[in-house]
Amino acid sequence: MKFSLTILGSSSAAPTSKRFPTAHLLNVNERFFLVDCGEGTQIQLRRFKLSFAKINRIFISHIHGDHVFGLFGLLSSFQLLGRKNTLHIHGPGELQEILKFYQKYFGSEQSYRIQFHALGYTRKMLIHEDERVEVFSFPLKHRVPTCGFLFCEKPSERNLKKEAIDAFKPGIEAMQKIKKGEDFVLNDGRIIPNSELTLPQWKPRSYAYCSDTSFCPELSEILQNIDLLYHEATFSKEDEDLASQTAHSSSVQAAKIALACNAGKLLIGHFSSRYKSSDLLVNEARELFVNTIAVNDGDEYVVERIRLTENGQTD
Amino acid sequence: MKFSLTILGSSSAAPTSKRFPTAHLLNVNERFFLVDCGEGTQIQLRRFKLSFAKINRIFISHIHGDHVFGLFGLLSSFQLLGRKNTLHIHGPGELQEILKFYQKYFGSEQSYRIQFHALGYTRKMLIHEDERVEVFSFPLKHRVPTCGFLFCEKPSERNLKKEAIDAFKPGIEAMQKIKKGEDFVLNDGRIIPNSELTLPQWKPRSYAYCSDTSFCPELSEILQNIDLLYHEATFSKEDEDLASQTAHSSSVQAAKIALACNAGKLLIGHFSSRYKSSDLLVNEARELFVNTIAVNDGDEYVVERIRLTENGQTD
Repeated sequence: MKFSLTILGSSSAAPTSKRFPTAHLLNVNERFFLVDCGEGTQIQLRRFKLSFAKINRIFISHIHGDHVFGLFGLLSSFQLLGRKNTLHIHGPGELQEILKFYQKYFGSEQSYRIQFHALGYTRKMLIHEDERVEVFSFPLKHRVPTCGFLFCEKPSERNLKKEAIDAFKPGIEAMQKIKKGEDFVLNDGRIIPNSELTLPQWKPRSYAYCSDTSFCPELSEILQNIDLLYHEATFSKEDEDLASQTAHSSSVQAAKIALACNAGKLLIGHFSSRYKSSDLLVNEARELFVNTIAVNDGDEYVVERIRLTENGQTD
Repeated sequence: MKFSLTILGSSSAAPTSKRFPTAHLLNVNERFFLVDCGEGTQIQLRRFKLSFAKINRIFISHIHGDHVFGLFGLLSSFQLLGRKNTLHIHGPGELQEILKFYQKYFGSEQSYRIQFHALGYTRKMLIHEDERVEVFSFPLKHRVPTCGFLFCEKPSERNLKKEAIDAFKPGIEAMQKIKKGEDFVLNDGRIIPNSELTLPQWKPRSYAYCSDTSFCPELSEILQNIDLLYHEATFSKEDEDLASQTAHSSSVQAAKIALACNAGKLLIGHFSSRYKSSDLLVNEARELFVNTIAVNDGDEYVVERIRLTENGQTD
């Protein structure tokens, strides 16, 4: 039941010798979601020994080169690897034209289907769900239409206590009811209270990705109590004018969002190559929001499972 | 007066954790020619501390993703770096459509002009020259129209001997004649023979790039006495059937070409990711052509200057 984020690229528009352009891989219980796809994403996947085959869904925040130029190489490698599964790509409507261009010049013998899903920009929208996870897009403020993405685990059922199940041996149907919180009635009429049979649920975990954006305080409403928040921090506080001109954020603005969201942890990245190190940026952010980390390519950030208490809280 | 080749990428279609897709940078006396532009070329340029600004001419052998997917990122970075100089791109006619697509979606605010030059496929053709170098394209045999490229230094003039020039003090006009091989007549009528005033020319150096191609023995005529020959070697001798099916070459076929060309040195690359190491391939090639090297990303191969003898030969 892993919930972890691996950074594939963390530079802003111009990559550096240490940072590739933006891409992240989110693992929600072995569902692998690729979030943005800067140049060299496929190279980073290989370098960090991550599986291509498990990526079935890609989310593209906006059509700027440093967030999409790795897509063509990745789609070609899927083809070389003999992919059969449909690949779902969520992105701005314009991306469909770009995919058609790719297919015309480079993907004529494609072994797999690409299913495109256009993003909307008016409000937070549910764009994908399965039995474990919901994915939402939400509008950001950049020079071109841009969305962030929110990944939320669905609430789980209560967990059966192995020793109690071994002792009382409920059938499959009864077990399903027990997991939903019901007590269990034995054949002799005795009632075994649910609390003897189960442990409370795990707290659903969440990750939000705020790609390129101006300072956007209204995000705090959408992302309240987020466990892991990635927010771009292209510039330092001193360069907030530049951030504003280019529709980006400073490290301090990212920290303000994390604080307002009551985030568990803030990851900052998308650093301008003008800063030789990320130290200045992360130190500025930590003055406001202590649990801030400046990401590096290849780093993995795990959100650990926490069991809720009987009243649905965390300790 | 450098003549050197730096390997930016040496994998075949699927990059590996150690090899990026194909790209080379040729330095002919501080003219930098980029030859093919696989995904991540701009990242490798940065990693190996090579200048973007000096690249004014790009040569694309054919329109397969592993030879062109780095172009969009590189063109964008030129823009970010404020490039003003016209960028010349030589490639298959189809590439012009791809560049138009790039400009439509990603290059709308371009600070520099792109001048496109379409390749021909019927014969060896001069496609660029300046006072120091001539560049030729020549047809290869691949699944799509493909050219190799030949870079030849132009013959230089004889080199003045400093001590003789200091002694006899010829004027600028006289010096130009001396460099062309004329004797020098002093005011008193004495004739100083040219051999006392100059050293013979440097031997013009040459590099040829044989991108993806089937075994093509007729190349030996075009590339006779080439100093540095890069020839793809996607497969081992044992897999020559596969090479033939996919219109590629084996390491032994590359060596056969080098031998028939009387090449100075053979570089092999574009290795299929099926081979864990390049040892097998380079050993096979060396059985036929001893001076073979399996290239690695970041390696630089220098062709040293050799002075000709008075009869225009090398020692």
